[in-house]
Amino acid sequence: MAQLTGKAVVAQSGGPTAVINQSLVGVVLESAKHARITGVYGAMNGVSGIVREDFVDLGQETSYNLERVAVTPSSALGSTRDKPDEKYCEEILQVFRLHDVRYFFYIGGNDSSDTARIVNEQARKSGYDLRAVHIPKTIDNDLMQNDHTPGYPSAAKFVAQAFAGINLDNAALPGVHVGVVMGRHAGFLTASSSLARVYPEDGPHLIYLPETPFVAEDFLMDVREVYSRLGRCVIAVSEGIQDRDGVPILSTLMDMGRDDHGNVQLSGTGALGELLTQQIKDRLGIKRVRSDTFGYLQRSFLGCVSEVDQHEAREVAEKAVQIAVAHDADGSVTIQRVGDYAVDYTLSPLHEVAARTRLMPMEFISRSGNNVTDAFRRYLEPLLGSGMPQAGALRSPRVKKLRG
Amino acid sequence: MAQLTGKAVVAQSGGPTAVINQSLVGVVLESAKHARITGVYGAMNGVSGIVREDFVDLGQETSYNLERVAVTPSSALGSTRDKPDEKYCEEILQVFRLHDVRYFFYIGGNDSSDTARIVNEQARKSGYDLRAVHIPKTIDNDLMQNDHTPGYPSAAKFVAQAFAGINLDNAALPGVHVGVVMGRHAGFLTASSSLARVYPEDGPHLIYLPETPFVAEDFLMDVREVYSRLGRCVIAVSEGIQDRDGVPILSTLMDMGRDDHGNVQLSGTGALGELLTQQIKDRLGIKRVRSDTFGYLQRSFLGCVSEVDQHEAREVAEKAVQIAVAHDADGSVTIQRVGDYAVDYTLSPLHEVAARTRLMPMEFISRSGNNVTDAFRRYLEPLLGSGMPQAGALRSPRVKKLRG
Repeated sequence: MAQLTGKAVVAQSGGPTAVINQSLVGVVLESAKHARITGVYGAMNGVSGIVREDFVDLGQETSYNLERVAVTPSSALGSTRDKPDEKYCEEILQVFRLHDVRYFFYIGGNDSSDTARIVNEQARKSGYDLRAVHIPKTIDNDLMQNDHTPGYPSAAKFVAQAFAGINLDNAALPGVHVGVVMGRHAGFLTASSSLARVYPEDGPHLIYLPETPFVAEDFLMDVREVYSRLGRCVIAVSEGIQDRDGVPILSTLMDMGRDDHGNVQLSGTGALGELLTQQIKDRLGIKRVRSDTFGYLQRSFLGCVSEVDQHEAREVAEKAVQIAVAHDADGSVTIQRVGDYAVDYTLSPLHEVAARTRLMPMEFISRSGNNVTDAFRRYLEPLLGSGMPQAGALRSPRVKKLRG
Repeated sequence: MAQLTGKAVVAQSGGPTAVINQSLVGVVLESAKHARITGVYGAMNGVSGIVREDFVDLGQETSYNLERVAVTPSSALGSTRDKPDEKYCEEILQVFRLHDVRYFFYIGGNDSSDTARIVNEQARKSGYDLRAVHIPKTIDNDLMQNDHTPGYPSAAKFVAQAFAGINLDNAALPGVHVGVVMGRHAGFLTASSSLARVYPEDGPHLIYLPETPFVAEDFLMDVREVYSRLGRCVIAVSEGIQDRDGVPILSTLMDMGRDDHGNVQLSGTGALGELLTQQIKDRLGIKRVRSDTFGYLQRSFLGCVSEVDQHEAREVAEKAVQIAVAHDADGSVTIQRVGDYAVDYTLSPLHEVAARTRLMPMEFISRSGNNVTDAFRRYLEPLLGSGMPQAGALRSPRVKKLRG
């Protein structure tokens, strides 16, 4: 394939993250360095903006404003849940032809890499020279071929800080607390709650992941054991916990809608937390049981970010542009860990990332199935960056009682 | 009354905050400066620790560890919801006599100031010389005689940052979002969501407070208007919204427990958010409607704090000790705003603060009843301190469409 000259289109897809705009700005600033890229358009709301021919000219942004946008969570271009079929992709290519677009950078998760793959194949079939490069992003951390994905470290930091606070709250006013964390198939984000622990009796005391079958009776026994030992219990639960047959616990509860990708809607409802607290109250007779469903805060909260995540989200986008222009290749840019701690970026074929899901490796999950291992904590720690606040605790000795 | 010599007991009560340990540390460090205070004991879990004679000797803490505890959210001594009656107070006094306790510093909200009042009156009746000083704390900001209360500014900062993120998320993936915020009677914390706005079309677009009667039909009309204008709508709702008769909207929904103070349990359940989203879906036919109930994160999240709040929480406790020792007086230390922006501390009689509730003044609520005024924003802004992150936005021009 020849090196191509023409415009670049960048778009954002799927759930927002704290650093997805770092990748957007990385594409814009890096593209400006390459003469072969004659302009950078942003498609509004992902692929849907391409077929609607709804572009903004990102070449007219100031560098100061771009840097302001880079540190702003959520997708500055807007997002979409559209999953293009063949006809949709044909429209995308029509628009690309019309605007002389030769570079397509799509920032998103596994659904988005699948979209990039389809557009890429369609272009090839129709004889239109196009570089399609997928730039990874997902708080779920579930993309194949990646050590981790941009967006995950910042969301993990939020979850860890949230559980650190909940643990302290629960210690002050004892009871059982259930915190429900995002993650449809992979438990990485729920597992990050373990980084909240400082002292031996700190919570979360129990962690339930989609990778391990959830058995209600075992769960209740676990809670009873912790509660009788400590007088309190903090529990982290993934929204995607499943029974032995792989059926989400939540979907057995309610008649829920599915999105355009056939995914069950697990977020935006507190039902799982309510169900579990009700079970604990009814079956264990514990009075003070509360749940919090973290919802959109964990992916969008303004002001909780890992600078490691910010740098990598920027870098992975710069590499995407460099690879597309200089190396004349398509694919998904993936993050590899080299040493402890540094990363490098490689190009993976789109079909190896597209529409597949990476789960927590077994060495990250405790044998009991209700916790994570030190190996996981070592994996996550460097990703959180600096400024992770640490909880303190009093160590004053008890005063001798004077009453008989 | 003569100046007293004896031990001090400090205790923490009610819902934890991000800065309640600043007040604890303020009492400990200030007490060490006064020879009349012969020791500082911390009562574990509020007044319940006193009657159980469960004290720690805070004089044996290092200053470094105290400063670590000061920046840790939640109540380091543990908390309680106990509301002492006469018999309970008699036991408190017995223990105080036994340990020669002459100074009682109780950090908490209006229920706690009422406890301090009862203990104070009982001591006087039984002829035991005791200084009882209430140190204000509540994220609800609903204490009489205070311009604002320690804990509120940090919780308000969390709520503002959360809504800034939700607004960006909602702009990227449009729909309706309902965020449910703590506050049983007073809407101050819900109102702080307004500080999230930067650009004219930023959410929250609608804010519902307990101070204004909530009428479902008006609510639905408001949502429809915003949604048809902007294609999206972000809503901040207090957990304590009430109907025209003062009945909490949530309590009309479910059979709920009440705590020892007769308060309905409004937190720890996502029911209000679910109800409102269901109404919007059913009645307005909008598909993408989500809710988040902020829960314990807003009062305990580790790492979201206003340094103004930290300083004031420390100062108000220092003043409490100074007043008790040097000025030989009982009461509640209250925060007064002097100038723009500085504060001073005064002593208010306990009965003026105890068990009463301060609501949002009318000039802080928009005439439409579904938003707040600029006066409120000017009131809150200096309390949030520095480091309030600002959202950025692209301003690239639209590209001309080439298709006919």
